[in-house]
Amino acid sequence: MNKNKISPAVVRRLPKYFRYLTNLENEGIEKISSRQLSEITGFTASQIRQDLNHFGGFGQQGYGYRVTDLKNSIIKIIGLNQEYNVAIVGFGHIGQAIYRYRGFDTKKFNVLGVFDLEDYEALDGKVKVQSIDKFEDFLTKNQVDIVVLTVPKEEAQKVSDMLVGKNVKGVWNFAPTNVKVDDNIPVENIHLSESLYTLIYYMGNPEQYIEK
Amino acid sequence: MNKNKISPAVVRRLPKYFRYLTNLENEGIEKISSRQLSEITGFTASQIRQDLNHFGGFGQQGYGYRVTDLKNSIIKIIGLNQEYNVAIVGFGHIGQAIYRYRGFDTKKFNVLGVFDLEDYEALDGKVKVQSIDKFEDFLTKNQVDIVVLTVPKEEAQKVSDMLVGKNVKGVWNFAPTNVKVDDNIPVENIHLSESLYTLIYYMGNPEQYIEK
Repeated sequence: MNKNKISPAVVRRLPKYFRYLTNLENEGIEKISSRQLSEITGFTASQIRQDLNHFGGFGQQGYGYRVTDLKNSIIKIIGLNQEYNVAIVGFGHIGQAIYRYRGFDTKKFNVLGVFDLEDYEALDGKVKVQSIDKFEDFLTKNQVDIVVLTVPKEEAQKVSDMLVGKNVKGVWNFAPTNVKVDDNIPVENIHLSESLYTLIYYMGNPEQYIEK
Repeated sequence: MNKNKISPAVVRRLPKYFRYLTNLENEGIEKISSRQLSEITGFTASQIRQDLNHFGGFGQQGYGYRVTDLKNSIIKIIGLNQEYNVAIVGFGHIGQAIYRYRGFDTKKFNVLGVFDLEDYEALDGKVKVQSIDKFEDFLTKNQVDIVVLTVPKEEAQKVSDMLVGKNVKGVWNFAPTNVKVDDNIPVENIHLSESLYTLIYYMGNPEQYIEK
């Protein structure tokens, strides 16, 4: 297993495998061939085999994959067998949506703190929003693994600069700009406008659209 | 100009060019070389030239690009010189965040209708949410260009099936599942969980992370 050679495209397929395998498990399906998995995912059977071989290979010749075993392996490969402490910076519409986002609604993600321009109570007093002035001190006193950035683009790099040396492991960035953390930690961007504009381009050029 | 050969990777860089050129214009910068553009964007100068050549090429040898001209060309290439009528289906946290999302806060996007399980007034009476039962009739009577899907995954395909034959041009899908519209219109997915899980993978394997 040479994990250094895994391309971003392979990495981005892992959550898709996880999603499809979870659905299969919920439907009570116990085993699946790479050909069947291909029909469900739209990836070729050989691509699926290659992808999984990066991480050790899980199928048996002539049998296929055990759904639950493969799902559990992918949980470990992604790192979803661990818990993560989260801080949300920016508590506007997107920040609130992320706070209440069901994907965070598991034991895996603990929202330790929410920060915005000033101290206030949000969502009928359920959330104590803290002033961003307290953020660096908070990071020093608490192990925050993931920082969710939903601040305006002008503020995004300033907040990112606060993360240096604080042992933060990753940034989930919704601000419409690229940010850089000097510790070189992973940043995953969700740029809503870019997604919308890509859609609009394909709406005007539907013959170029490739179904995913 | 052979637009049939434009790869998705090129298309996804167009909104980035638009964003960077808008920033440059706001900073009062009038011209820029592909080398300078490379430093800002992180794309190579030759990649930038190749990308733009797909659409006709805009630079002058030894001069570079006129920022405003290039920005305006990219606006047209993407299709941002037009207006779009939008319907939002699903008015939970994500739907509300998208409704209030600043990117929609221009003359380019008209939110014609908002749909959820039943009729009610939302956001202090400012938004009349309509029952999904009225959605197909609404699509017949109104030209909706973009449908924003923020429904639970179990509902996403059902709503997509309602779009067939309604002259909808594109779907912006936030539901954590893939949907298919039989008219074969473009679907652009924002899968929050997949993005988060990709981040988590790289948090556990930071040596594999490639800065974008």
